[in-house]
Amino acid sequence: MARAETKERLLQAAVRTLASSGYAKTTARAIAKTGGFAPGVIYYHYADLDDLFVETARFTSARRLERYKSETKNFTGAADLVTRLRALYEEDTAEGHIAAIQELVAAAVASPRLAEQVREETARWQEFAESVITTLIAGSPIAELVPVPELASAAVATYLGLEMLSHLHAEGTGPERMFQAAHRLALLIDSVSGNQP
Amino acid sequence: MARAETKERLLQAAVRTLASSGYAKTTARAIAKTGGFAPGVIYYHYADLDDLFVETARFTSARRLERYKSETKNFTGAADLVTRLRALYEEDTAEGHIAAIQELVAAAVASPRLAEQVREETARWQEFAESVITTLIAGSPIAELVPVPELASAAVATYLGLEMLSHLHAEGTGPERMFQAAHRLALLIDSVSGNQP
Repeated sequence: MARAETKERLLQAAVRTLASSGYAKTTARAIAKTGGFAPGVIYYHYADLDDLFVETARFTSARRLERYKSETKNFTGAADLVTRLRALYEEDTAEGHIAAIQELVAAAVASPRLAEQVREETARWQEFAESVITTLIAGSPIAELVPVPELASAAVATYLGLEMLSHLHAEGTGPERMFQAAHRLALLIDSVSGNQP
Repeated sequence: MARAETKERLLQAAVRTLASSGYAKTTARAIAKTGGFAPGVIYYHYADLDDLFVETARFTSARRLERYKSETKNFTGAADLVTRLRALYEEDTAEGHIAAIQELVAAAVASPRLAEQVREETARWQEFAESVITTLIAGSPIAELVPVPELASAAVATYLGLEMLSHLHAEGTGPERMFQAAHRLALLIDSVSGNQP
């Protein structure tokens, strides 16, 4: 198996183990068991678990961000955007991406390197959210009034908090109803702005 | 020392240890060191660490919710509410409350009892957010159109996500700028609704 392919299998096994067992139980042995390879493979590629966790944060964030970018390309209005985000949200949940991120954020309290990586990844999501919001409001009469960076920060925080809670089935109304409410609001925004439905 | 007082000292030490070291390193020994008592005291009051974590979730959530309820009583409008929430947010950060909650949510992946407790606490915050939003929009011409439970869920998720990120200094624009933007928006809402400034 090629080096890149092995690394990807390793990182996918790390994401799945973090999501199912939590960071405290995500040992080399547990990851190896999830992925079906020998624990030694991990130490061949990574200096230690901290090193692997940093790479896992980079890997899962980059992969999801790529999907978000490609799937939100050329959206036609607010309602269309909400529909696309809802499908992406379902993918996040199915892949264990957010459960893994949540564990990595919690693990970062005790790891300055991991904390630094989480900051870098959050900055990328912030930039993506700003570009989506800028596209959404382009040409609108209120465009000048919208505080884009603050709104983008709020969007990133909301997504993270929502997925954290829904992972535990602790969310108040359920993501389904929240996306429906967002969709109704988006239709209203579109009809005011003259966007395509 | 009275039993209730000992328990409160224990739980405060657990909150501080979770916030500073993460759940994986929050052992009986570490908590005892933080609180300045013998590790045996913990096992006198709690069956195991899982039991202590469940109580810690209940304790820190109840204490903060009480502050939120008393400090948002009789708010006079959206801008006044934002000002009060901002002060409460600073208290959350100073006490290590949210860092501890974040660790407990992450630890809940491997503990069904802790997950159940997090669900119960989230339901209480959801109820609080609904009551604040209902008060805020009472008498407004758009009151009927506001999806209160969905908005309350979004508010709880945003707060949680924001505090998670700001704990790592990973938030995009910083809570300060986001509260300022929320305050400007709130002033606009108040001027439209005829609230007191």
